[in-house]
Amino acid sequence: MTISVYDQSIARMTHMLENLDKIVSKAEAYAEENDIEPDVLLQARLHPTMRNFIFQVQVATDISKGCAARLTGTEAPKWDDGEETFADVHARIKKALDYLATFKPEQFEGSETLELVIKLRSHTIDFTGQSYLLGFVLPNLYFHVATAYNILRHNGLDLAKPDFIGRL
Amino acid sequence: MTISVYDQSIARMTHMLENLDKIVSKAEAYAEENDIEPDVLLQARLHPTMRNFIFQVQVATDISKGCAARLTGTEAPKWDDGEETFADVHARIKKALDYLATFKPEQFEGSETLELVIKLRSHTIDFTGQSYLLGFVLPNLYFHVATAYNILRHNGLDLAKPDFIGRL
Repeated sequence: MTISVYDQSIARMTHMLENLDKIVSKAEAYAEENDIEPDVLLQARLHPTMRNFIFQVQVATDISKGCAARLTGTEAPKWDDGEETFADVHARIKKALDYLATFKPEQFEGSETLELVIKLRSHTIDFTGQSYLLGFVLPNLYFHVATAYNILRHNGLDLAKPDFIGRL
Repeated sequence: MTISVYDQSIARMTHMLENLDKIVSKAEAYAEENDIEPDVLLQARLHPTMRNFIFQVQVATDISKGCAARLTGTEAPKWDDGEETFADVHARIKKALDYLATFKPEQFEGSETLELVIKLRSHTIDFTGQSYLLGFVLPNLYFHVATAYNILRHNGLDLAKPDFIGRL
């Protein structure tokens, strides 16, 4: 009646970032084929008060990085948010995938009961490893990949649900 | 190094559908306060080839219903997709929440190794209980709630991430 923390975290985050990278490639090809300035897509947002496409990628990778580090009691690397081009965005995702690949299942042993304090902009939240992963990391990861997808769909890129879900 | 299937499925789906219901209430109040015809929001979509807001709610509830039934080897009820009003949408979510509330943790014992065959529109997929839950149910649930959120944000409703994530 149980599923390992590694399968739920590293495996899922890796899968979703790989899907996101393929979506970015489709956006890049769409811009090139249709003579669209890359910034039109990279800076696109669904509402003036929402964040742009690049930001969605930055948060999806940051959430993944933070999860791997916190659940294993290790220090996360610091990544600057200077991405401006499709190449930068691909590099950001690759950096996250390479980082996730350094973790091994046994490092997550017992992590579901860890006590974690997460500092958000306005306040801090007390989590267990389990509530952090299930209630914060995964919903946030899926939210930002879905929002990246929705921004591109809204801008006419022909994506379908399998681009989001990935190979099953 | 493990988290129960119940905590990952019923608990998460219930939480997300409760968040979605509150988002629907905010949309309803926004329409009323601003003299917006309910259909403007209920029928809104991010692109002509994407599905509308009501559809996002229908799929989020269907995915949840199907997951609970399949992982427990029980028969899912059949729900028609006739929702047209905010009241209908609330009722659809309530129906799903009431259904999820009938399940007990012990019914999910061993469900991660179940062999499941899921029929999609064009093909079938072989899953284990684990790959079905982690790779299909949860990404789909989060995708459709995020898309519902994005449709409303795009239409000017003032939502923020905590509306999606819910109370932590």
